[in-house]
Amino acid sequence: MAELEFWYEFASPYSYFAAERIGPMAEAAGVTVHWRPVFVGPIFRAMGHDTSPVVDNPQKWAYLKRDVVRQAARHGLPIAPRGEGGPVVSMLGTRVALLLAREEGDTGGPVAEFSKALYRASFVDQQAIGEPSVVAGVLSAIGMDDEAVIARALTPENKEALKAQVAEAQEKGLFGIPTFFVADDLFWGDDRLEQAMEAASHA
Amino acid sequence: MAELEFWYEFASPYSYFAAERIGPMAEAAGVTVHWRPVFVGPIFRAMGHDTSPVVDNPQKWAYLKRDVVRQAARHGLPIAPRGEGGPVVSMLGTRVALLLAREEGDTGGPVAEFSKALYRASFVDQQAIGEPSVVAGVLSAIGMDDEAVIARALTPENKEALKAQVAEAQEKGLFGIPTFFVADDLFWGDDRLEQAMEAASHA
Repeated sequence: MAELEFWYEFASPYSYFAAERIGPMAEAAGVTVHWRPVFVGPIFRAMGHDTSPVVDNPQKWAYLKRDVVRQAARHGLPIAPRGEGGPVVSMLGTRVALLLAREEGDTGGPVAEFSKALYRASFVDQQAIGEPSVVAGVLSAIGMDDEAVIARALTPENKEALKAQVAEAQEKGLFGIPTFFVADDLFWGDDRLEQAMEAASHA
Repeated sequence: MAELEFWYEFASPYSYFAAERIGPMAEAAGVTVHWRPVFVGPIFRAMGHDTSPVVDNPQKWAYLKRDVVRQAARHGLPIAPRGEGGPVVSMLGTRVALLLAREEGDTGGPVAEFSKALYRASFVDQQAIGEPSVVAGVLSAIGMDDEAVIARALTPENKEALKAQVAEAQEKGLFGIPTFFVADDLFWGDDRLEQAMEAASHA
C-alpha cells in the first residue's frame, strides 16, 4: 500500500504550503497520507539553536520571508505579509491536531481539515494562533464542538502523546519541517513534496 | 539586458548541479550569466559555524548526502558516492577560476569551462581537488597552460581579488551556496535556478 507520513508544524509557512497541496496530489497518486503534527522547538534546541536554524540567521531569515511570498505565488496560495516578529507557534493547536488524529484517524478527515484551517487563520487571516480563543474559533468554524475537543486535548494523556510524537520525530532523524517519510526514507521541505509523493506511489 | 549572477563554491555539490545546468538554460532564456566563484568558509564562520550550517548538523548532513544522489539522478548528472569526509574545498581552484574570470571575462568561456571540469574532477572522478597537482591536471586537460595560469593565480593581486569577492558576497547578503542574484534579488540553492532564470529573463 502506498503510504506517506507528513510531519508538520504550525509555525512553518512551508508546512502550510504542503498541507494545502498534499491532499489532491495524494489522491491523484493513490497515496495514503498520515498527518503527523509536531513541535520542532525541542528538536531545534537539541541541535543547539535558540529558536530555529532559520531565525538564528538574520540574513537567511530575511531571505526566507521573501522566498515564502514567491513560493505562495507559484503555488497559487494566498499569504498575508509578515510583520517583524518570529514564527508563531501554537501549543494548543498542535495538541488539538494530534487529538483529532488519535481519535478520528490520521489519514485525513478532521485532523487535515483542522490543520488547514489553522494554517489559513495564521498565514492568511493573520490571527494569533497561539491564543486558545483563536483555536476555539477555528474548531467552531469547521463545525466541531470546540469546548469538548479542547478539554480532551488538554488531558495528561494527550500531552504525553505529543511528547511521544516529538520523541518519535527526533528518533526518525527529523531535523527540519515539513518532512515527509516514505518508509524510512526522509524528504525535507515543501520543495521535495513531489519527489516524496512519487517515491510513495512506487513503494 | 537580461543578466544573472551565479555565485558558487567548489565544495558544494548543489553548485556542481547548477554549473552543469545553467549554460543551456541561460541560452534558451537569452540570459547572460556572470560566473562568480567564491569561498563560503569565512562567511559561515562569521555566522558562528565551525564548518558549515550543514556539516555542523549530523542529521542534516546525513540527509543531504542522500538528497544529493537523488537530485543528481533527477538532473541526469553523474555523481560518485561520497566517503565519510566533509566537503572538499579548493583554494587554488577558486583562485584559478577567479583569475580566468578576471582575465577572460566572467560570462562563460574559460571560467565556466574550468569550473565545470573541476566539479567533475571532484564529484565524478573523486579527485582531491584541494591538491595543486589536480588543479594543474584539470587546466591542462582543457588545453590551458597550467603552469602559467597557476603562477598568475597565486599573485598577491589575485589573492586580494578573491578576498574582495568574498567581501562582496557577504555585503550582498549571501548566506548559502549556490546563490543567484537578479539585480539585488537573491535566490538560494540549485532548487531555485529555474525561478532565478525566469526572473532574469523578465528583468
